[in-house]
Amino acid sequence: MRRLDRKRGESRTGSQGARAVRYHHLSHPFAPQSVFSDDAIAGMHDTALRVLEELGVRFLLPEARTIFAAAGAVVDEETQMVRIGRDIVASALTSAPRSIRLRAADARHEQTYAQGRLLFGGSGGCPNATDRIRGRRPGSLSDFEDALKLQQHFDVIHILSPSAEPQDVPVNLRHYAMMRSQMMIGTKPLFAYARGRRQVADSFDLVRIGLDLDEAAWNDGVWCKTIINSNSPRLIDVPMAEGIIDFARAGQLSIITPFCLAGAMAPVTVAGALVLQHAEALACIALAQLASPGAPVSYGGFSSNVDMKSGAPAFGTPEHLKMQIGSGQLARLTGLPWRSAAGSAGNTADVQAATENTMGLWGALMSNATLTVHSAGWLEGGLTFGYEKFILDVEALQTIAELCERPDSDAAAMAFDAIAEVAPGGHFFAAAHTMERYDRAFYTPLVADLSNYGTWTEHGAKTATERATAIWQRALTEFEPHAGSAAAADRLAPFIERRTAQGGAAPSE
Amino acid sequence: MRRLDRKRGESRTGSQGARAVRYHHLSHPFAPQSVFSDDAIAGMHDTALRVLEELGVRFLLPEARTIFAAAGAVVDEETQMVRIGRDIVASALTSAPRSIRLRAADARHEQTYAQGRLLFGGSGGCPNATDRIRGRRPGSLSDFEDALKLQQHFDVIHILSPSAEPQDVPVNLRHYAMMRSQMMIGTKPLFAYARGRRQVADSFDLVRIGLDLDEAAWNDGVWCKTIINSNSPRLIDVPMAEGIIDFARAGQLSIITPFCLAGAMAPVTVAGALVLQHAEALACIALAQLASPGAPVSYGGFSSNVDMKSGAPAFGTPEHLKMQIGSGQLARLTGLPWRSAAGSAGNTADVQAATENTMGLWGALMSNATLTVHSAGWLEGGLTFGYEKFILDVEALQTIAELCERPDSDAAAMAFDAIAEVAPGGHFFAAAHTMERYDRAFYTPLVADLSNYGTWTEHGAKTATERATAIWQRALTEFEPHAGSAAAADRLAPFIERRTAQGGAAPSE
Repeated sequence: MRRLDRKRGESRTGSQGARAVRYHHLSHPFAPQSVFSDDAIAGMHDTALRVLEELGVRFLLPEARTIFAAAGAVVDEETQMVRIGRDIVASALTSAPRSIRLRAADARHEQTYAQGRLLFGGSGGCPNATDRIRGRRPGSLSDFEDALKLQQHFDVIHILSPSAEPQDVPVNLRHYAMMRSQMMIGTKPLFAYARGRRQVADSFDLVRIGLDLDEAAWNDGVWCKTIINSNSPRLIDVPMAEGIIDFARAGQLSIITPFCLAGAMAPVTVAGALVLQHAEALACIALAQLASPGAPVSYGGFSSNVDMKSGAPAFGTPEHLKMQIGSGQLARLTGLPWRSAAGSAGNTADVQAATENTMGLWGALMSNATLTVHSAGWLEGGLTFGYEKFILDVEALQTIAELCERPDSDAAAMAFDAIAEVAPGGHFFAAAHTMERYDRAFYTPLVADLSNYGTWTEHGAKTATERATAIWQRALTEFEPHAGSAAAADRLAPFIERRTAQGGAAPSE
Repeated sequence: MRRLDRKRGESRTGSQGARAVRYHHLSHPFAPQSVFSDDAIAGMHDTALRVLEELGVRFLLPEARTIFAAAGAVVDEETQMVRIGRDIVASALTSAPRSIRLRAADARHEQTYAQGRLLFGGSGGCPNATDRIRGRRPGSLSDFEDALKLQQHFDVIHILSPSAEPQDVPVNLRHYAMMRSQMMIGTKPLFAYARGRRQVADSFDLVRIGLDLDEAAWNDGVWCKTIINSNSPRLIDVPMAEGIIDFARAGQLSIITPFCLAGAMAPVTVAGALVLQHAEALACIALAQLASPGAPVSYGGFSSNVDMKSGAPAFGTPEHLKMQIGSGQLARLTGLPWRSAAGSAGNTADVQAATENTMGLWGALMSNATLTVHSAGWLEGGLTFGYEKFILDVEALQTIAELCERPDSDAAAMAFDAIAEVAPGGHFFAAAHTMERYDRAFYTPLVADLSNYGTWTEHGAKTATERATAIWQRALTEFEPHAGSAAAADRLAPFIERRTAQGGAAPSE
């Protein structure tokens, strides 16, 4: 069974040499695993429902409280607490779609967002950027665009994410630049921040204009997605609730992501952090479904632990992986597609950062996460986007993507005749069986150097991190805008000019 | 369900702080996965049987051919080829034990070697050693002993392996030094090389003397193990066949390990390399069972691919992982416990080397390998043992070992009361639920530094590899010999003195 699509006519990326492997569309190669019994998962779901109906969640946005009250939730306007009955949650889990079509400027980059699918996103939300040439600095529009080019370049990155925050663009105008850059550079599913109603409305307008979508096209599937973070514990702030409502009503995708760090914003136990995550996710999913029944919404979680000495978040730890796998169990209980995350707390693209991210990627595989964000380039727990880190992580992602394709198992693959042809103690280098297959038999590494110690030393004894520099440099140097890039920019210019003249749109408080 | 034993009275190692986690005895946390259909696996088994009965395997040792001939195999003395009927293989798979007791000087380090168990071994067979202080050099007895101390120190390493070859000891005396060092430094299951009959006999004598075993104790379980590598394709040399026979007759463990590099010593396809691996493994298992029915023997494989440009072996690649998972399927078909391997082709302890090894560890998890060797410290495809690499890999192993323990899922763990106690937007740092658990809630990293960028920079901006140096230095400095060390040395001295005076024992050709 081939779980990795090989499509004709796609341009080759990712240093695949003579191999024609495509990583555009992946499905999980491994069965989802468990860390909790089914009874325990049922108990956690029930406890989360008790949290919602007995303790409640605080929604700062009056409209959110009004929506919940109309649905029969118990709202205390003084404390802004909303107690959500389990009937409301059950109804939301019934109306939320199981499969969501992620549209893209290039139809070949469309994705089906559903359980069983395997999508990777690069880093998101990093205020800083770093590389070996220029060092660590505040993120700029140039970094933001470089990161988009890298995400577009590598097939194993399936969506666009805002990796390095363009801090050199004023906040009231930043969303124009971010949407424009995405559409000029990329043809993969778009991202929009939920930083307030006016910015979200602008972003939707920009997508319609940039991609030249008429009303029918805009309403057919999801054209952009956002991440909704709760302010754990049990608090949903104004822009996040606005985002849930506005994305739902526009038929665009909210990816609900409580950030429950056990021991800090969440209980110190794996089960306790997941109960809180689950309660917050269900509350946000309920709001989306109440705002617009059937609206696309993703379950999600980003629970991990903190270092109890410093309070710093940790990633790729045993507790993070257990929470990923438990999240997958809870997601399967809801039936909804869901988002997990890898990432690293490392301060530089070293072995710690690599091991943390690789562990998180395997946690996502074991939990069958639909989408794994922060899967490439995420340093310092998300404070910094690393150029070399991105390249190094892509090697891990490509290795995993290759696992989605089953090896051949016909008689020719079993190679009885080749084994008969080669004498005991001989070699297969020149065997006909080898010659027919050698140029596409194996994955071609992106960064890994398989030369021996002598050759490696002669070539400067470069570490993988050092070698990664030339790889991102070449990817950026050789980057060519897609065919529709200039036309999209032309279409967007008048709107952006007008809105800029009007003062843009400040984020919600 | 707790899959990780917590034993009372064990000394604490591995920087576990206040946690009382023990990694001594692990069982696989995840269900074994597949890359081939059951039909394909049956077809590969059948093809391997055809290789054995139609093509045969060349055994250079006359005694091996005699044993096979007596069992009804078709032997051609001129070509040294042995054609092994499937009845012989079936009989061997019936008589080989499913569960093997690995004895150890310290009973707490005993292991049950059976499917479902999860054992890790450090690097084996490296001619060189390297660290950041002294650089790369030929392995010495000092390096060999340092590596043993590190293996003994970390609970997550379950057996002793010959990591750095003591090239400063003459080959005719080397086995005395290697066995003596193991028994003076370690209390975990021992290793002996199969480098010829006289050396093996010496090694068995040394184990009996060093551990003070009477005949009944020596015959009760396995006291030492060896690795048997075929000279793929289809060639078993003299010392390997001698090793199989002598270990079987002494009731000690042969771990059969064809080293089938696809495209070089094996067919270029995953299925073809596994067919050859399987045929060679079955031939060696058959020899062990013919030499002594019921003898302890382990299925195993170390199949990976080569770089088709240089012919260099590759590890942690997609093909390596597919071969690991396919090997697990073939091992389950035989019912025998089996050995896999991780490792790295990297020339230094960098991100490439880390990612390769971590990928191979997950391949071992996906395939439910009983024993994963080369799981810490293996650089350059086994040519060099790396001190820092060992430490960095132990972090990955400990992370995986932690996954063997399921999280608590009782009502207290689900933390409803703690969630009720903390106000929306508050934090759990001071919650009673946290205070009761914080010092043992999370894995304490060995190498990972979770401090923020500023603090990390103030402390010298050290990479994980740089930080690993102090960790192995401290482990070696603080190492204390076990209680029986001196007595073992005293018991061994007269034997080693006598055998040395007799000229020792040269390896077989």
